[in-house]
Amino acid sequence: MRLVTYKQLAEHNTSGSCWIAVGGTVYDVTQFIHTHPGGAKIILKEAGRDATSAFEAVHSLDLLPRFDETVKPVGTLDKSSERLDGNDNTTAEADAAALRRAGMPSLGSVLNSFDFEAIARQTMKPEAWAYYSSGAEDEITLRENHAAFHRIALKPRVLVNVSHIDTSTTFLKQTRVSLPVYITACALGKLGHPGGETVLTRAAGARNVVQMMPTLASCSLDDMLNARVDGQDTWFQLYVNADRNVTRDVVLKAEARGCKGLFVTVDAPQLGRREKDMRLKYQEDISDIIVKTGGDEEGTSTGQKKVNRAMGAARAISSFIDPSLSWKDIEWLQTVTRMPIVLKGVQTGADAVQAARLGLAGVVVSNHGGRQLDTCRSGIEILPEVVADLKRAGLHGKMEIYVDGGFRRGSDVFKAIALGATGVGIGRPSLYAMSTYGQEGVERLLDIFREELEMVMGLMGCTKISDITEDMVDASHLSTRVSLVRDMLHQTVYEPLQPPQFNRSSKL
Amino acid sequence: MRLVTYKQLAEHNTSGSCWIAVGGTVYDVTQFIHTHPGGAKIILKEAGRDATSAFEAVHSLDLLPRFDETVKPVGTLDKSSERLDGNDNTTAEADAAALRRAGMPSLGSVLNSFDFEAIARQTMKPEAWAYYSSGAEDEITLRENHAAFHRIALKPRVLVNVSHIDTSTTFLKQTRVSLPVYITACALGKLGHPGGETVLTRAAGARNVVQMMPTLASCSLDDMLNARVDGQDTWFQLYVNADRNVTRDVVLKAEARGCKGLFVTVDAPQLGRREKDMRLKYQEDISDIIVKTGGDEEGTSTGQKKVNRAMGAARAISSFIDPSLSWKDIEWLQTVTRMPIVLKGVQTGADAVQAARLGLAGVVVSNHGGRQLDTCRSGIEILPEVVADLKRAGLHGKMEIYVDGGFRRGSDVFKAIALGATGVGIGRPSLYAMSTYGQEGVERLLDIFREELEMVMGLMGCTKISDITEDMVDASHLSTRVSLVRDMLHQTVYEPLQPPQFNRSSKL
Amino acid sequence: MRLVTYKQLAEHNTSGSCWIAVGGTVYDVTQFIHTHPGGAKIILKEAGRDATSAFEAVHSLDLLPRFDETVKPVGTLDKSSERLDGNDNTTAEADAAALRRAGMPSLGSVLNSFDFEAIARQTMKPEAWAYYSSGAEDEITLRENHAAFHRIALKPRVLVNVSHIDTSTTFLKQTRVSLPVYITACALGKLGHPGGETVLTRAAGARNVVQMMPTLASCSLDDMLNARVDGQDTWFQLYVNADRNVTRDVVLKAEARGCKGLFVTVDAPQLGRREKDMRLKYQEDISDIIVKTGGDEEGTSTGQKKVNRAMGAARAISSFIDPSLSWKDIEWLQTVTRMPIVLKGVQTGADAVQAARLGLAGVVVSNHGGRQLDTCRSGIEILPEVVADLKRAGLHGKMEIYVDGGFRRGSDVFKAIALGATGVGIGRPSLYAMSTYGQEGVERLLDIFREELEMVMGLMGCTKISDITEDMVDASHLSTRVSLVRDMLHQTVYEPLQPPQFNRSSKL
Amino acid sequence: MRLVTYKQLAEHNTSGSCWIAVGGTVYDVTQFIHTHPGGAKIILKEAGRDATSAFEAVHSLDLLPRFDETVKPVGTLDKSSERLDGNDNTTAEADAAALRRAGMPSLGSVLNSFDFEAIARQTMKPEAWAYYSSGAEDEITLRENHAAFHRIALKPRVLVNVSHIDTSTTFLKQTRVSLPVYITACALGKLGHPGGETVLTRAAGARNVVQMMPTLASCSLDDMLNARVDGQDTWFQLYVNADRNVTRDVVLKAEARGCKGLFVTVDAPQLGRREKDMRLKYQEDISDIIVKTGGDEEGTSTGQKKVNRAMGAARAISSFIDPSLSWKDIEWLQTVTRMPIVLKGVQTGADAVQAARLGLAGVVVSNHGGRQLDTCRSGIEILPEVVADLKRAGLHGKMEIYVDGGFRRGSDVFKAIALGATGVGIGRPSLYAMSTYGQEGVERLLDIFREELEMVMGLMGCTKISDITEDMVDASHLSTRVSLVRDMLHQTVYEPLQPPQFNRSSKL
Repeated sequence: MRLVTYKQLAEHNTSGSCWIAVGGTVYDVTQFIHTHPGGAKIILKEAGRDATSAFEAVHSLDLLPRFDETVKPVGTLDKSSERLDGNDNTTAEADAAALRRAGMPSLGSVLNSFDFEAIARQTMKPEAWAYYSSGAEDEITLRENHAAFHRIALKPRVLVNVSHIDTSTTFLKQTRVSLPVYITACALGKLGHPGGETVLTRAAGARNVVQMMPTLASCSLDDMLNARVDGQDTWFQLYVNADRNVTRDVVLKAEARGCKGLFVTVDAPQLGRREKDMRLKYQEDISDIIVKTGGDEEGTSTGQKKVNRAMGAARAISSFIDPSLSWKDIEWLQTVTRMPIVLKGVQTGADAVQAARLGLAGVVVSNHGGRQLDTCRSGIEILPEVVADLKRAGLHGKMEIYVDGGFRRGSDVFKAIALGATGVGIGRPSLYAMSTYGQEGVERLLDIFREELEMVMGLMGCTKISDITEDMVDASHLSTRVSLVRDMLHQTVYEPLQPPQFNRSSKL
Repeated sequence: MRLVTYKQLAEHNTSGSCWIAVGGTVYDVTQFIHTHPGGAKIILKEAGRDATSAFEAVHSLDLLPRFDETVKPVGTLDKSSERLDGNDNTTAEADAAALRRAGMPSLGSVLNSFDFEAIARQTMKPEAWAYYSSGAEDEITLRENHAAFHRIALKPRVLVNVSHIDTSTTFLKQTRVSLPVYITACALGKLGHPGGETVLTRAAGARNVVQMMPTLASCSLDDMLNARVDGQDTWFQLYVNADRNVTRDVVLKAEARGCKGLFVTVDAPQLGRREKDMRLKYQEDISDIIVKTGGDEEGTSTGQKKVNRAMGAARAISSFIDPSLSWKDIEWLQTVTRMPIVLKGVQTGADAVQAARLGLAGVVVSNHGGRQLDTCRSGIEILPEVVADLKRAGLHGKMEIYVDGGFRRGSDVFKAIALGATGVGIGRPSLYAMSTYGQEGVERLLDIFREELEMVMGLMGCTKISDITEDMVDASHLSTRVSLVRDMLHQTVYEPLQPPQFNRSSKL
Repeated sequence: MRLVTYKQLAEHNTSGSCWIAVGGTVYDVTQFIHTHPGGAKIILKEAGRDATSAFEAVHSLDLLPRFDETVKPVGTLDKSSERLDGNDNTTAEADAAALRRAGMPSLGSVLNSFDFEAIARQTMKPEAWAYYSSGAEDEITLRENHAAFHRIALKPRVLVNVSHIDTSTTFLKQTRVSLPVYITACALGKLGHPGGETVLTRAAGARNVVQMMPTLASCSLDDMLNARVDGQDTWFQLYVNADRNVTRDVVLKAEARGCKGLFVTVDAPQLGRREKDMRLKYQEDISDIIVKTGGDEEGTSTGQKKVNRAMGAARAISSFIDPSLSWKDIEWLQTVTRMPIVLKGVQTGADAVQAARLGLAGVVVSNHGGRQLDTCRSGIEILPEVVADLKRAGLHGKMEIYVDGGFRRGSDVFKAIALGATGVGIGRPSLYAMSTYGQEGVERLLDIFREELEMVMGLMGCTKISDITEDMVDASHLSTRVSLVRDMLHQTVYEPLQPPQFNRSSKL
Repeated sequence: MRLVTYKQLAEHNTSGSCWIAVGGTVYDVTQFIHTHPGGAKIILKEAGRDATSAFEAVHSLDLLPRFDETVKPVGTLDKSSERLDGNDNTTAEADAAALRRAGMPSLGSVLNSFDFEAIARQTMKPEAWAYYSSGAEDEITLRENHAAFHRIALKPRVLVNVSHIDTSTTFLKQTRVSLPVYITACALGKLGHPGGETVLTRAAGARNVVQMMPTLASCSLDDMLNARVDGQDTWFQLYVNADRNVTRDVVLKAEARGCKGLFVTVDAPQLGRREKDMRLKYQEDISDIIVKTGGDEEGTSTGQKKVNRAMGAARAISSFIDPSLSWKDIEWLQTVTRMPIVLKGVQTGADAVQAARLGLAGVVVSNHGGRQLDTCRSGIEILPEVVADLKRAGLHGKMEIYVDGGFRRGSDVFKAIALGATGVGIGRPSLYAMSTYGQEGVERLLDIFREELEMVMGLMGCTKISDITEDMVDASHLSTRVSLVRDMLHQTVYEPLQPPQFNRSSKL
């Protein structure tokens, strides 16, 4: 490939003609900017520049070649050519990050998983916070995921000797873990911490829990696997690619390198609308830039343009996530690998029964952290339906049931076990702990879950996981759904009661 | 008629004697001002002036002759006579409008139907906003219309090939539409946009959805029909007039000009109390003007006066809306037209069964956008009762069921289809989109509904409208009604939990 | 009796020796001040003065002799003796009242019954507002009284000819009234308006509704009866006195002067704790005054003193309200009068059945406006139990059922009729209307109730009261009781969704 | 033991080597500071000083010898040696306390139990308030304890002679008490009042109610017992010690000195997480001190350190509270004492049945004031299950049922009696009354409960405790659990209704 000087690179700095250099290669990404799932703005900020560090802050370098249709190599960056000014805003970003973290509480002051979230909200880069924290549309399900736990009451038994409490259990009949909790797969770990998903791998190893490694990680699979300690079991989460050969390759690689479970995501045939994230990504000035630089051949009306862009982004992502995925593909996967296969994202008893009929190893009852379909039920609410339908079909016990969504307390984990789960996935809390205090934070998070679960077990009269039974919870109102419409005038005219007032003006 | 000079016109500028000129004719509206449904104030502002532009901003010119009892032609305006000062406050109003729209977000930043409403609230003329947004009395039903959707949970199926999703469907067995949504009839479109209802007609044409054209439009029926594109199907909404000949004429005209459905409003024998709107219309200074100018012969006490005025307004409107409307009239309408007849505003299973027995084409389950009777049920809540009663009567499937009220999301539309609806009417969102961004806004609104519905269908495992079934939703708590009375003292003395605090005074 | 000069009167101006003059007589009220139901402070403000106008502002002059044990006549005020300064703070109070009413909205702007309450809250004397507005303890029932209506949904029927709507009905088989609403008995009307209860009498007469005249009125029964117009029917509310002869006399007088119903209050064997009112009445400086003047022989500890005082007040009131009242007394009353007897304050089906068995004319299902027992049920919630129990006992229809508590809308009245009530009592709204706009206000309030009820009836498809049936409401969740405990940490860390923001700094 | 001078004492003032003097003896507490249940900070403040007064402010002097493993006597304080400066901050603390109490309302203005809490929150030392007021984790159960009462409605009977109301009853078949309420056991009374638990003893004696004396009192058992008046019955609350001999001794002593009941706490095999309290105890600067002084041999990462510390605290407390406590121990206790044995902290019907089968005298249905296990049920909710299970087992009436948690009103007590309780325990309200107004405050609190209960009984138609029956309450929704997820966008765009506005700028 031909050499490209810094000066030549800098000439293509508009949406009409946009070049960037990554890893020594210069790419023409003019077509790609409108289909970038992360938004056009973030690329245009790097237009005409060496974007290697910005790129690596989020992605693995092996990602770029996959976009061969819209990301075209132009040449090799001539690093000996004269550099131009204004190529670097790293210092300003570092200053902003330091400002956000000023006076940050010490890890010792973190008492529960909510504390990590509260600190992450203040210290994370707003774009990263928005990506992690947002849910689909009105975020009803996002919040219901946790709220549902408060419709389940604990019924503790007393006078049981609980001197020794053992929170350990076995996952997929082979992996002994220190507690019935695993770190579930989340995309783009580098948004929160430069070490990305390997931070989670190391913390999981230190605390003997399982990490589920994501297809859309910002670290490469090899990086994550290399971060394991001796004897550390991990799982692999799979988005089935439109090109089944790509899928076969990655599955075989995961199996070869020792992954102990294949978790196939089945609840994301397309991306949900995460509007809080979309709101932040959308920038008025993008259209200005586009107009100014003469670009944008798509449609004529603004509304139309947006549609096309959204469709473009969907196309871009669809090379990773295939909307045609169906039960046939699961049967095909069974021929590809001997890893236990678990469906991630089952939301009805009927689909769980179908999974059990296929002889799968398990299902994860999950709504994808409330990021896909709003107003669907929380995982914990679906759990009793899954158990009941499996029992009705004579398939209960043939398959393990995992669940995720909204778990924040040891008591939440206890409730899931009581309602029939083998294990519980933790997503956002691990990202927040990682983003605020790194590996040490994630370890502390897992310690908190263990401490809380131990305490709950002790107070419930349980000394081991198998002691936890369904009659220890009252879930009779788990599916009770109410909404409130305030009686405005009546409330406005009502004068609230007050406690007696101090006469603070009196002299001492 | 005799010629009236500007000077003569200006002499009748009080509530004691009030003339206005509209379309070249001078009218004495002294009697009418107290019965004007839009309030006296808005007329008195134009007293003694050429009010043509103010009138056309809201009404069609063919409206005035219908008020022959209280609006009396006096003569023809002599446009060659000398004009007087102070006849024009158009500039001030335009300035106020510009101020409200300053810095308005671009259409591209609108992510959902609520966004149109949020922007409309800030940019619309307060009187127009109040008229569109207000509901009956305490607005319990207005808000319950949307809140009810949150008592319905989605139960998605996985591993269905959803590569191709088709949101199109057929309305009234003849009209193929791009999605199961239509623009329902709302009065006074010009309050929000100078183009009035024709803006909606054009957007509906561009997106291949049906518009239901209102009797009380501020554009004439001809204007709306002329705005259609080739092959565009529309419906006509009918308020039955006390004079059945007027009704017969308009129905025959609608049919002759190709309307494909006659939607007879049956839930508005009288106007509901929209107090937010009333609050704004009422102005202390009106009574001052009246007293000052010696007018007001009605009653003696202020309370009494208001009653009479309210009754007057009811009388004025009753020439358009007949409170005696009954089932006999529906049978008569069946003899008048061959258009399919649909009852708009049915709220019980019993009335739906009666409609089916008469052989009507359908019903719209609706509470008139919460503008008529407060604390009645939302359309979506009534839907299961209607389906159940029709099944019980052996009439299910003989008639189509439409529903409106509070629809704001594609998932709301999905839920209605799952519970048995053929289509869903959108009212206020189309007005807000029209009032903020005109035709382009309405098209964008329809695109949002389509995008959201496509996404929901994909995530639910449905590729076409007929895939949507009742078992995909949990509506078991749809009729659960709760209210809360806060335990004030207990809540006042409780000290809430807090996350750890940052020490922001620490040095960097 | 001996003559007492202004100077002698003024010497007894402390809690140790407290004289006041009322109607020309000087009383020693030293013992009474601690048992005054309205609190000691209000009397001590008048100590050593001619308190006639202050007294008449709240009470009828025939009240004083009833307190013969603790209120002792000392002599006759010598009005020819020299007056002292500082006897008059009327001007200051009038100024304060004028300040509160400054800019008060005109009656025409009052759209509903809540508006009267909102205006009363700002314009009434704080003590009067506290007395009228307060409820028992946490005021749960006070607010539940209205909140309960929102758990009842209306189910309107369509296509009924509602050109003519008649809201009139018959009470106690003899009185034709313009609407199924009456003004119920409330104590101390002069607190809100100098005309006291006669204002209500006149408004009731003007609008042809029934007023229930209270035993504890601040006007005399004669004053109220004299305020009637020709043919105006009224009822009498009775607190049974410990001295049954007193009761017999007042009942016979009421009957003789034409009262058409005797409503015996049965839910107030003792006074409820209205803490908002108590809070206001309690004043630190009272104890100071007492200590300073050497008085207060009761107990030694402050706590003990308060108890005794409270018991004293209970004793004082018990000469009017007898806690020993029982079913035997009702049977005795049946021998005393031929007026129809109605029990006011029944709260269970069982007691309603007992009343029907005794052959009484009716019951008022009521919790005394939430002023007696907190966390009891609202009248509207009890109504279905009463109807069901009467039906079960074969006594339904033998007795009329009235209901009060929280009625603020015509739709509330409609719901009560649908659930079996003959009529509905209005309490606080009539006091607020009276206190703000006098007779005209009360008439407007009744007009609003009529207008709203007419509108609801029209929209429900009812042309007369007897058209209103039980199947027109959904009350299936009327007894559903929920409470909420907020998930504080989860809610604190959640970042709410926002609509798009305006860029208000942009230039026009 | 050797003599230690003030100078020598002062040299050991760091976490690396920490001595304190208490009661004339100098102890080396270097090992103890990390396991102190009350936190390290509070000890380090006294390092190198005579901490006698600080110690006695919270603990009884007989406490120290129990920690013989980690608290080592070093010698005797040589009080004749030269004192050093800076030994005293008592004045500053007294000033702060005076400031908090400035303008404090008089006891007479306290109308209900919430008022004590409101005043305590403002006047107590923050550490003491946090210890008393905090509950486990999210404090859901803490608040639900009171909220549950609002899901029970009262159903009053009328026309019962209630001239004489008797609130007295009998506890454990032997103690006649003035009302069905007792003061339950709470730890560390001296935090709120220098007199500690003896203040409660005296108030209980004055009002003839039972006090349950706590194992973890800050006064000695002897001090409490000596504070009794003649004939005053009290109970003893027992934490079973890991050393059963210690337990035997204290039980025999309690019995010998006349305690009339042994209440064995069974719901606290380990301490709950009271995070509000933990938040306050944690101080950043502790780790600073430790680091600076070279101490802290535990682990290396901060997270690890905290874990060990927490485990240390658990170890420290476990010499008082044995997690191995089981049903066998209860049978053993039956052989040790003839006092009636009651299990405190039963939360299921099943465990109550087991207690009855053992022939115990009773159970206290309790969740430990919401301080142990969050999201468990309130005592009042569990009560009906306990009664039903006992009836089913044929054991109802064989055993008394007590209940505590969230009782704040006389009506709460009434509801518990109606649902089957013999008596009700009051915890925090007695601490708040004690901490604000001392003995007089606690007496007033008991008076308020009695006054409220009398009033409720009168209004319910009950003259004695045995008149209170189950059909007088509607508890059908006691176990209905709901949670709300707000529909943010919809609520944000909604414009609330407003009452008419005053024109306050108008002239008078």
